[in-house]
Amino acid sequence: MQLSSRLFRSSSKQPAGIAAPILQELRAILGKDNLLTTWEERACYSYDATGQSFLPDAVALPETTEQVAAMLRLANQYRFPVIPRGAGSGVTGGALPTAAGLVIAFSKMNQILEIDPANLIAVVQPGLITGELQAALKKHNLMYPPDPASLKFCSLGGNAAECAGGPSAVKYGVTRDYIIGLEAVLATGEIIKTGVRTEKGVVGYDLTRLLIGSEGTLALFTKLILRLLPLAQAKTTFCLTFTSLAAATQLVAEILSAGLLPCTLEYMDRTALAAVRTRLPQPLSDTTAALLLVEFDGNSAEQVQQEALRFVSFVQQKGNCVLRQATDAKETDELWLARRSIAPAVLSLRPHKIAEDVVVPRSKIPDLVAFTEQLALELQLLILTFGHAGDGNIHVNIMLDKSKPEEHRHGLEAKERLFRFVLGLGGTLSGEHGIGITKSAFLPLEIDPASLSLMRKLKQLFDPNNILNPGKIFPE
Amino acid sequence: MQLSSRLFRSSSKQPAGIAAPILQELRAILGKDNLLTTWEERACYSYDATGQSFLPDAVALPETTEQVAAMLRLANQYRFPVIPRGAGSGVTGGALPTAAGLVIAFSKMNQILEIDPANLIAVVQPGLITGELQAALKKHNLMYPPDPASLKFCSLGGNAAECAGGPSAVKYGVTRDYIIGLEAVLATGEIIKTGVRTEKGVVGYDLTRLLIGSEGTLALFTKLILRLLPLAQAKTTFCLTFTSLAAATQLVAEILSAGLLPCTLEYMDRTALAAVRTRLPQPLSDTTAALLLVEFDGNSAEQVQQEALRFVSFVQQKGNCVLRQATDAKETDELWLARRSIAPAVLSLRPHKIAEDVVVPRSKIPDLVAFTEQLALELQLLILTFGHAGDGNIHVNIMLDKSKPEEHRHGLEAKERLFRFVLGLGGTLSGEHGIGITKSAFLPLEIDPASLSLMRKLKQLFDPNNILNPGKIFPE
Repeated sequence: MQLSSRLFRSSSKQPAGIAAPILQELRAILGKDNLLTTWEERACYSYDATGQSFLPDAVALPETTEQVAAMLRLANQYRFPVIPRGAGSGVTGGALPTAAGLVIAFSKMNQILEIDPANLIAVVQPGLITGELQAALKKHNLMYPPDPASLKFCSLGGNAAECAGGPSAVKYGVTRDYIIGLEAVLATGEIIKTGVRTEKGVVGYDLTRLLIGSEGTLALFTKLILRLLPLAQAKTTFCLTFTSLAAATQLVAEILSAGLLPCTLEYMDRTALAAVRTRLPQPLSDTTAALLLVEFDGNSAEQVQQEALRFVSFVQQKGNCVLRQATDAKETDELWLARRSIAPAVLSLRPHKIAEDVVVPRSKIPDLVAFTEQLALELQLLILTFGHAGDGNIHVNIMLDKSKPEEHRHGLEAKERLFRFVLGLGGTLSGEHGIGITKSAFLPLEIDPASLSLMRKLKQLFDPNNILNPGKIFPE
Repeated sequence: MQLSSRLFRSSSKQPAGIAAPILQELRAILGKDNLLTTWEERACYSYDATGQSFLPDAVALPETTEQVAAMLRLANQYRFPVIPRGAGSGVTGGALPTAAGLVIAFSKMNQILEIDPANLIAVVQPGLITGELQAALKKHNLMYPPDPASLKFCSLGGNAAECAGGPSAVKYGVTRDYIIGLEAVLATGEIIKTGVRTEKGVVGYDLTRLLIGSEGTLALFTKLILRLLPLAQAKTTFCLTFTSLAAATQLVAEILSAGLLPCTLEYMDRTALAAVRTRLPQPLSDTTAALLLVEFDGNSAEQVQQEALRFVSFVQQKGNCVLRQATDAKETDELWLARRSIAPAVLSLRPHKIAEDVVVPRSKIPDLVAFTEQLALELQLLILTFGHAGDGNIHVNIMLDKSKPEEHRHGLEAKERLFRFVLGLGGTLSGEHGIGITKSAFLPLEIDPASLSLMRKLKQLFDPNNILNPGKIFPE
């Protein structure tokens, strides 16, 4: 596994590049303005949020499905890699052109094609920014729940490719629960329509959900049919602080089992809090070991108030934390800003991080957190945990300075031991980030040999010449 | 398409049967009591709820995953068809041994293996009856929402194979939303584990949801990991009657768009009501053209009461129906008994029916119902509509007497015209029943050629010798 962030490593890996006559054909498909070939232009599409970078041979900015199809036919003919790219905000390397080739960036296919309030459906292009869709829907009193931390800059196509989640998943589910149909281009250039634009549908094999989360390795999305909900009309926010980490993490499963259904149940440990301390609306006591951010929403203020009362009474019975209800929108916004800032802010603690999004059964969160504390002590590393506790999806950040070989080695050891421990708890290696290149070596830890063989055969069936995002998901 | 119900048509189609030495090997795998070979025993496994019947060569009642795997290895070696069977309650022929072969009935693999209230997870065997699981969960204050009308006798394995729905789908979703992992046996006999036992998971391709709804053609399920919810603590039931069919169907989309989220939003037209008239708790006026059964549930009586008040106010503003709130459990039970009795009761109207479960965008339900009324007039048929209006999933029953050739022909014409109209509305041919054999001829109306070709290749990849439920889903 490669964790360094040296630029353009690929130039040595990629022997031939895309030859000039092929670039000419691509230009004929796209128009000259939509094929980028200068070093400077390509450099802009060489990276993602992993901090790694690989220079592509060229970058295409298609405007139509037909252009995407024509490019894939060409890629199959000349056998060059095609790397789909949403907004490049992925954290496992899905959008990295690790074997060079052609990056297809969907930034010009970013339109809302249709909003159908009567049927709670929207049809969008893959390059649309998730937050922009949500803002547009709000005007129609509608919502699309999935809310990755990157929602202000990530794209729906990328969300679909990785099956993104977010804080609201605890109540509303993840991307796969809201994409009910696709227009997609197969590796061989055929355009298919999958799924439905109705609430239900069971006709034929479920290609939609097979493609969701396939990380750009099976097909490229050119249109998404989304299921919407009426906008929640009211929301209330609670901040719970604990002097015991175990008390905080134990409460998580108990809240859900008690029949309380928050739309946010986020957790931050002491170190995560320290990283965003200056952004918190209230100063924290030095004894604070963990914080839970809990929200309830609903379609009326009375309904939310009812649930909030039940929650307060439940928490007070436990009596092991300080509970504070946010008094206004400003305080809520500040809590959220702090929460969403953790991922970048932790880099102030150490220059590099190994950021994993493991999931465990909710009742096992205390075991997971205790394990990471022990691991940090043993390997002399700073490890922090935060994230979507409500669905057991804990972000574990192993902080390090890669320029120190011993620390780097310890970081990699911690990652592997974390994965093995998580699987031992009945958990999974990724809840919402996908596998990409950063976790591919560990796939066989979770997936049994027969399933892995089947997945490889699926890849071959969909993409016989291995042109679609080669080198992703599967271990080398 | 074959709609007659003559018994054991297959004996002529099936040239060889399973030879005695193979039966001997099967007996060695299963033990002699678990392989049924007499005519009487096989006849019991020859039918399903389509009314059609095909005699299998033998019936296996496995007790372990390993027995299932061993049988599939044998089937691959000797190339005999294997037809998985849950409870035989399917209405599209999924469990029919149309090409004879070996029926594998999962009735002895019917255990609840685990209920984990802290993590809201259950692990069950495929032969477990859906209603029995629900009853067991209730004792733990938990629920598994999918509730097909047949829940008292259908099995979870069959529900998974067809991706069954039910009235609660409008709020809670369908089977695929609650099965998060599987143990399955591939056609070639390998045992795989798919998915997770956590709320989230995006590791590798989504084999779980590819297998859900694959109608026994890709793999056999031997274990299901289910996501549960805390049991709803309160519920209230409304019965709305309308003198105008259009008024009833128009209200459906409006209820959902207004942000009201009932856990039941069922519709019955005049003819459906007539069929169950004697079972209704209140006599209906002669002018009643349609009825909506609407329920709200929640985790507290106050919360349900709030939503009920909002609903009542919403309906009163419309002012186009008579609204009645059920006063006690008896009245609710009677309403449900009437609703669940429609499917069998309509056979008192005419001896046969073509029963379809089409889905349209909710706002198009009035168009669909107007079309079926017009079709009934034109073709001189009795056609009734009822079902899960809340998710646009309308059961259209075309009643007929097949002994009258003209009427039978008209019935088949009505079915095809219905399908074409539904697709024109942006709908789908099946919301919860699947394709099986009764709709396979119409699959190409909905699925484009490239997708259909891909699905056929998937079938071939999973089942190279076409032993798993051959002849299902795909048109001949």
